[in-house]
Amino acid sequence: MKNCVIASTSTIHGSQPLTYLFDTLEELYKECNEILFIPYARPGGISHDEYTIGINNIFKKIGKKTLSVHMFEDTKASVKNAEGIYTGGGNTFLLVDQLYRHSLIPTLKEAIDNGTPYLGTSAGSNICGLTMQTTNDMPIVHPQSLTTLGIVPFNINPHYLDPDPKSTHKGETRETRIKEFHNLNSPPVIGLREGSWLRLKEDDILLEGNLNARIFIKNKEPYEISPNTSLKDLN
Amino acid sequence: MKNCVIASTSTIHGSQPLTYLFDTLEELYKECNEILFIPYARPGGISHDEYTIGINNIFKKIGKKTLSVHMFEDTKASVKNAEGIYTGGGNTFLLVDQLYRHSLIPTLKEAIDNGTPYLGTSAGSNICGLTMQTTNDMPIVHPQSLTTLGIVPFNINPHYLDPDPKSTHKGETRETRIKEFHNLNSPPVIGLREGSWLRLKEDDILLEGNLNARIFIKNKEPYEISPNTSLKDLN
Repeated sequence: MKNCVIASTSTIHGSQPLTYLFDTLEELYKECNEILFIPYARPGGISHDEYTIGINNIFKKIGKKTLSVHMFEDTKASVKNAEGIYTGGGNTFLLVDQLYRHSLIPTLKEAIDNGTPYLGTSAGSNICGLTMQTTNDMPIVHPQSLTTLGIVPFNINPHYLDPDPKSTHKGETRETRIKEFHNLNSPPVIGLREGSWLRLKEDDILLEGNLNARIFIKNKEPYEISPNTSLKDLN
Repeated sequence: MKNCVIASTSTIHGSQPLTYLFDTLEELYKECNEILFIPYARPGGISHDEYTIGINNIFKKIGKKTLSVHMFEDTKASVKNAEGIYTGGGNTFLLVDQLYRHSLIPTLKEAIDNGTPYLGTSAGSNICGLTMQTTNDMPIVHPQSLTTLGIVPFNINPHYLDPDPKSTHKGETRETRIKEFHNLNSPPVIGLREGSWLRLKEDDILLEGNLNARIFIKNKEPYEISPNTSLKDLN
């Protein structure tokens, strides 16, 4: 039975990373002392060590210790044995490339499917969809495949942004990009606004947070759903 | 000797497609009666036939006829024999995937290197860089490679957008994304604002249009360049 928090973003405007999720995380991780962190999305700027120290300092506030997958020689075993897992944000292409290079895709999927509590933010949420094809990131590396964990039976667009009616920019809006995805692909897509998350537990998938989310289904008009809507039949 | 117009966008706010470039195109295509159109970036919505009819109607205004590569059985020969070429916008992943599937990457590069007049807009410009890794598009397909034509010795970010200082959105800015690219890759990147284009002729590469462009070099602070700056030594 899956037990996950799949969040649009780690950080919302005007607040420290993850603080808006602390209550949710205390419940998600209530049986965990130690969280395994997956820092692979981070494209540089800070090292995996520094990224992990930052996350450790945040998780300390809810009484959890953090270890990172990059510290283990046997990365598969570290995922298999984890009490709880958190995959942070950065660049989704890089995250997926690293997961494939470490042969971690099936191991991570199995751990989550078996009920290991899992938090994803941004890129770490994107990989919970069927594919990473609705990412907003630049292809700074070329992963062997775009297929991801399929923890939910649809695709995720994190950091979902509504079109700005005043914009004079002619680049595609987020909605246009998702429509392009649907011209060639079938999975439904959820546009998760910053401050929203999906809560997977007891075989349900609920939209949580205070905001609506936007649902995109191939050949249909997009529509809004409100918090506490179940998405378990969206496929 | 290359003869190219590599434009950020086909359309600028408040005007019809390509009209802002008509003077430039009359000069680019002055020896051409017929332009070969490459519609492969178009992810649907309209068919390749409809897309081509639209482009034909635009090019008629400057006295040119348009044929599209998708109308030819021998696509390579159509590119080789073209008097002039235009690759339109859409989704860069799809464009690159289609160019690889039709084995057109080397043929197109050779034609442009040999002086066939070439116009690219948006995705059609992105492919003139060394790789398509600084695209803004979603990976709606998974091309076999991200390596593109290398008509210029750097990468291109079309539809370049400056960060909005008032934004409360926590997704990466365009500048942050290009910085992520440079954490893992070396080529310089030009952020081409809508209304700007690169003019390649007589062995030079000039920024044209009324706007500055933004140059990103690995491990350096980004900087602005003004119109008529030469970029032939940016590599």
